[in-house]
Amino acid sequence: MAGNSFGEIFRITTFGESHGKGIGVVVDGCPPHIMLKQADFDHEMARRRPGSGEFDTPRKEEDDVEILSGVFEEVTTGAPIALFIKNRDASSKSYDYMKTLFRPGHGDYTYHMKYGHYDYRGAGRYSARETAARVAAGVIAGKILSQAGIKVTAYTVEIGGIGIESKDLSVITENPLCCPDMKRYKEMEKALSDAKAMGDSLGGIVEVLVKGCPAGLGDPVFDKLSADLAKAVMSIGAIKGVEIGAGFEAARLRGSQNNDPLTLSGFSSNNAGGILAGISNGDDIILRVAIKPIPSIALAQDTVDKNGNPEKIKASGRFDVTAIPRVIPVLEAMVKITLADHFLRSMITENYRKLQDAESQNGKK
Amino acid sequence: MAGNSFGEIFRITTFGESHGKGIGVVVDGCPPHIMLKQADFDHEMARRRPGSGEFDTPRKEEDDVEILSGVFEEVTTGAPIALFIKNRDASSKSYDYMKTLFRPGHGDYTYHMKYGHYDYRGAGRYSARETAARVAAGVIAGKILSQAGIKVTAYTVEIGGIGIESKDLSVITENPLCCPDMKRYKEMEKALSDAKAMGDSLGGIVEVLVKGCPAGLGDPVFDKLSADLAKAVMSIGAIKGVEIGAGFEAARLRGSQNNDPLTLSGFSSNNAGGILAGISNGDDIILRVAIKPIPSIALAQDTVDKNGNPEKIKASGRFDVTAIPRVIPVLEAMVKITLADHFLRSMITENYRKLQDAESQNGKK
Amino acid sequence: MAGNSFGEIFRITTFGESHGKGIGVVVDGCPPHIMLKQADFDHEMARRRPGSGEFDTPRKEEDDVEILSGVFEEVTTGAPIALFIKNRDASSKSYDYMKTLFRPGHGDYTYHMKYGHYDYRGAGRYSARETAARVAAGVIAGKILSQAGIKVTAYTVEIGGIGIESKDLSVITENPLCCPDMKRYKEMEKALSDAKAMGDSLGGIVEVLVKGCPAGLGDPVFDKLSADLAKAVMSIGAIKGVEIGAGFEAARLRGSQNNDPLTLSGFSSNNAGGILAGISNGDDIILRVAIKPIPSIALAQDTVDKNGNPEKIKASGRFDVTAIPRVIPVLEAMVKITLADHFLRSMITENYRKLQDAESQNGKK
Amino acid sequence: MAGNSFGEIFRITTFGESHGKGIGVVVDGCPPHIMLKQADFDHEMARRRPGSGEFDTPRKEEDDVEILSGVFEEVTTGAPIALFIKNRDASSKSYDYMKTLFRPGHGDYTYHMKYGHYDYRGAGRYSARETAARVAAGVIAGKILSQAGIKVTAYTVEIGGIGIESKDLSVITENPLCCPDMKRYKEMEKALSDAKAMGDSLGGIVEVLVKGCPAGLGDPVFDKLSADLAKAVMSIGAIKGVEIGAGFEAARLRGSQNNDPLTLSGFSSNNAGGILAGISNGDDIILRVAIKPIPSIALAQDTVDKNGNPEKIKASGRFDVTAIPRVIPVLEAMVKITLADHFLRSMITENYRKLQDAESQNGKK
Repeated sequence: MAGNSFGEIFRITTFGESHGKGIGVVVDGCPPHIMLKQADFDHEMARRRPGSGEFDTPRKEEDDVEILSGVFEEVTTGAPIALFIKNRDASSKSYDYMKTLFRPGHGDYTYHMKYGHYDYRGAGRYSARETAARVAAGVIAGKILSQAGIKVTAYTVEIGGIGIESKDLSVITENPLCCPDMKRYKEMEKALSDAKAMGDSLGGIVEVLVKGCPAGLGDPVFDKLSADLAKAVMSIGAIKGVEIGAGFEAARLRGSQNNDPLTLSGFSSNNAGGILAGISNGDDIILRVAIKPIPSIALAQDTVDKNGNPEKIKASGRFDVTAIPRVIPVLEAMVKITLADHFLRSMITENYRKLQDAESQNGKK
Repeated sequence: MAGNSFGEIFRITTFGESHGKGIGVVVDGCPPHIMLKQADFDHEMARRRPGSGEFDTPRKEEDDVEILSGVFEEVTTGAPIALFIKNRDASSKSYDYMKTLFRPGHGDYTYHMKYGHYDYRGAGRYSARETAARVAAGVIAGKILSQAGIKVTAYTVEIGGIGIESKDLSVITENPLCCPDMKRYKEMEKALSDAKAMGDSLGGIVEVLVKGCPAGLGDPVFDKLSADLAKAVMSIGAIKGVEIGAGFEAARLRGSQNNDPLTLSGFSSNNAGGILAGISNGDDIILRVAIKPIPSIALAQDTVDKNGNPEKIKASGRFDVTAIPRVIPVLEAMVKITLADHFLRSMITENYRKLQDAESQNGKK
Repeated sequence: MAGNSFGEIFRITTFGESHGKGIGVVVDGCPPHIMLKQADFDHEMARRRPGSGEFDTPRKEEDDVEILSGVFEEVTTGAPIALFIKNRDASSKSYDYMKTLFRPGHGDYTYHMKYGHYDYRGAGRYSARETAARVAAGVIAGKILSQAGIKVTAYTVEIGGIGIESKDLSVITENPLCCPDMKRYKEMEKALSDAKAMGDSLGGIVEVLVKGCPAGLGDPVFDKLSADLAKAVMSIGAIKGVEIGAGFEAARLRGSQNNDPLTLSGFSSNNAGGILAGISNGDDIILRVAIKPIPSIALAQDTVDKNGNPEKIKASGRFDVTAIPRVIPVLEAMVKITLADHFLRSMITENYRKLQDAESQNGKK
Repeated sequence: MAGNSFGEIFRITTFGESHGKGIGVVVDGCPPHIMLKQADFDHEMARRRPGSGEFDTPRKEEDDVEILSGVFEEVTTGAPIALFIKNRDASSKSYDYMKTLFRPGHGDYTYHMKYGHYDYRGAGRYSARETAARVAAGVIAGKILSQAGIKVTAYTVEIGGIGIESKDLSVITENPLCCPDMKRYKEMEKALSDAKAMGDSLGGIVEVLVKGCPAGLGDPVFDKLSADLAKAVMSIGAIKGVEIGAGFEAARLRGSQNNDPLTLSGFSSNNAGGILAGISNGDDIILRVAIKPIPSIALAQDTVDKNGNPEKIKASGRFDVTAIPRVIPVLEAMVKITLADHFLRSMITENYRKLQDAESQNGKK
């Protein structure tokens, strides 16, 4: 209820602040007998870690995930899995300048209004650092999906207004933006360098592709898979919009264009983005999100302080020119967590039907 | 958990099918002492009702909301409020043609895959008729918001690719699309007539404006107000995308352009759409949704039947050329329900702080 | 959150007041393909109905359960099942005398304190009439349990201090108290007649026996099966205590006496009452509840009115001499609902394990 | 849903195993501005710690509570509070003897049946060690209650069949059983020594007294305060029964004896135990629980091993002769957590009413 949990069956609760002892998550509802060890987290944590790419802040963290509970002899037990990631390089000194200033585009003002205080040390709870816990939980969700044959991939399709023209997913590991068009990537890279030189930042659009999702995930009428995915991704601070399938473009199509005809070999188009009436239809799930430019910039901006005096503010701490490389693993994690939850939810009806079938078989004999 | 409930404190559970006895909702968590009588529902129900506008199906329903519980002498008691709306004109005969066909763009296929059956009588549970219950619940939410001085208005900003050029909210009651630009409305009207003549349908974009929302609504980190609003609106069947504030456009702005500077008289722009770090900032909340064209069209479409044979399907029942006039009150209802829930959630901290203040006052004496 | 829902997967939400239009319940999470028709409810509703036994109020109700949704052609669809029971004989006139008086032992005072009002017409929401909705929901839960081979039976083991000496469950349908000892039943009957003659009322102890429950139901650590059963039964107004297995007697045993040894043919005793560490162990589940005497009595009692004046109150409306015959079906219903919920919860892990096994089989090939 | 969380507004999620890295809890929904530091936990943790009393196991733990998040400069921020307690003396060697044996009275068998494995190292998740996390969370709940003037005290009223004859709460800190009758305490002490000498164990009955609870806590109809308290305490492994007020004795009283008359100075008796129709009535809340004798005993008991062979088992690890001294702080913690949750829940209606009153005042002007 206080907002720090997500999911029903596969349920995560995150905790921790950017400049406190660390960041953590409790994953409740993970089935037993799944192999899990500390090293399983390394790859995803490295992807989200600041300082790993050329567009990132110089903050250096190792982000080792410590498994505090729920795993015995490298296998999950069914007990809640608590994960903890220590904050190593958490100098709060560099944030002193804003002890009384509200940074534009950040939660300083709203947290101050809600809680009567805000944590000036790099945003505290509403720092992007919180998402490290989501990535860690996403690794566990990913193990469940992998047993189900479901694969989630996110990649940049637009940065600072520069969109892709071709889509070759085999190249997304070759550039820090996970861009599937190397030619346009070069232009995106240039735009980012230019923005950086100006002390400014850029946003963009990322697409998420889910392959292998069976038909039948999602619960009517409020817990539609589309609705839960929308909530999942909109709970990431930098994201300001989400669309499924044709999305906003669907609003410009005629019904005869937008409908996906059914054929013997499946749907012949995928404007629905793999979800019909809130339930997965077995086709690829496709969604896109809008990521705003990072609000912390080196340019001077107007603001007020806590006492209501007008001030200028200029970010002097660590900051990136775009959040995208780090948002991508978080986005994948949130999509994985949502799918794992609905996948486990679907177990109920599925197993119950097996029981009914067995019984009606018995009845026939 | 089974997906038919929404909200935490102000919690609604809907039930009913399009061609069963009726549609209903239980509203749990409504505070006592709010005046409520049957006639309070009439205006909103009439707005959502099919057959009321020129773009709508000829289905004629009165949609009287019967209050089954929770109200005594026209005042809420704090007990759950159950509302029921009888289905009056529910001939399922006209749906016989699709008893074995999956309609493209509808939930027939996915419900069949999930539940092992689907209700061929006008979609059953995934019919738009279910949203009547949401509109009824929205009326109660609206009463709470009205005591808090919060007002929610939705209006069409684009239909079939035709966007508005001016925004005069005083004219939205003068046209069935709630379009704030009468000149462009004429063009939208023409586009709808053309689509209808072709046996086709159109979608569009609707904007929701929330005025008077205090700062501080929304709970970090997953139950951000933006995340809950996204889920709320994406749970409406026809909606394929949602954006807050500048939304997808924010992805094309630089940080220096997108940040809303704070001044002595408030924020000097509103790209954030009234929500920062997931918490309302006291400014107008603005969101836009993409509504897909209605899938039921008079044109022949490819599909398959339950046995996997290829077939052609042509809608011959009742259908609209656009869902927008009827989606608008549903959209407002879902936004109201989300805000009422977070408004009541904010009571906890607010009253607790009053308690703490009173105590610290006592301590000082 | 507002307290009118129970269960996680099999989730019921009740609504309605004793002297309003009726009482109802929405059951969300019932699997599809279960046969269900109106007549299925008749037997259980008749058991709970007042006026059916000799110790009951003369209030005459038929308690027909109307299925409002979730069932198509007498089979559940997976959609929420709404049930409604009209109030037929709901004269509130006889309650006028207590319009301003707080009845001792009833919720008048506490509802007044909590909500700033109370419904003087026969208790409104906190009337025993609300339990009719639970019994109706229990019928659906019972269908699920029956597919699982689980059977729930409740019977009186003590009334007004008179306890049973033998236990023959085959006779419980032969007396209105469901007493398994016909000899002691005669004494109980006499005690009830005496109490009635004095204008007084009696309470008693009821035992619930669950046969056929598989091992493995219940979730650690808070949602223990024992904890959820305790909440379920303590949510019935008249119940003031609950014990599992040896219960309070276990507090007087030595460990060597209380432990149930495991043998090749199962547990050789059942002090645990079928639940170990909160999880069912496959043995019979046994619990007992304490039911207080009905607070409405013909004898004059001291009370105060809303304005704080001392008054005498004497029940002149309809009232029973003991609640037990009517509590029994409610108690069975709440136990069934709790078990059905945990049974469906157990489907998740069970089906997931089948998936894992299938995969590891594939791996071996 | 997976059972490791409790509470709605003040919501705790525990994690950890007896012989893993440690035990922890995340408290979500704690209001901001409450003073909290590590030392605040010391007293309660010391009470629960094994090895502190004469009837306890020699296991020596310091149980320092580390605050991982949610507190800044010794004040709560409104963010989730994660607490962690390291396992220091966790030799699992002494449990090797039961690697394949199911201990009678423990969860070994049921966990094995549910999860397909069990943690033989001192019970793992179902160890009493898990309750350390509850005690830590209870300290935070206690801070909220203390601001509300609510005080919770538990004390032993019976051990091994020896009941108290007088009740002087001022002496409960003078003996390890928190017994309010020093004379009977001596007899209890003797009974415990005797049981220990025999290699056996004893159970008993503990009463919990809540003073200062305002009227109005509890939500009808399922989340009655009595029902939530019952679940809270029955979720403690050793507890097999709970009763409120007169409890099982109420089943033997007549209505005229059991009803608590209202007078100008309050209720003239308290058979209701402070709760009417599930809502606190402003009087003392009184409940009693039955605690079973500790199942681990030095006497040989019959059991089977995982392969179904009959075996004898004798506890050779660390074990207590009675759980009561350590259960008392856990019991107080669970009652505090339940009350804090309902106290915060009551803030919603309370603050909303203030808003309504302010508005109606404005209307009058």
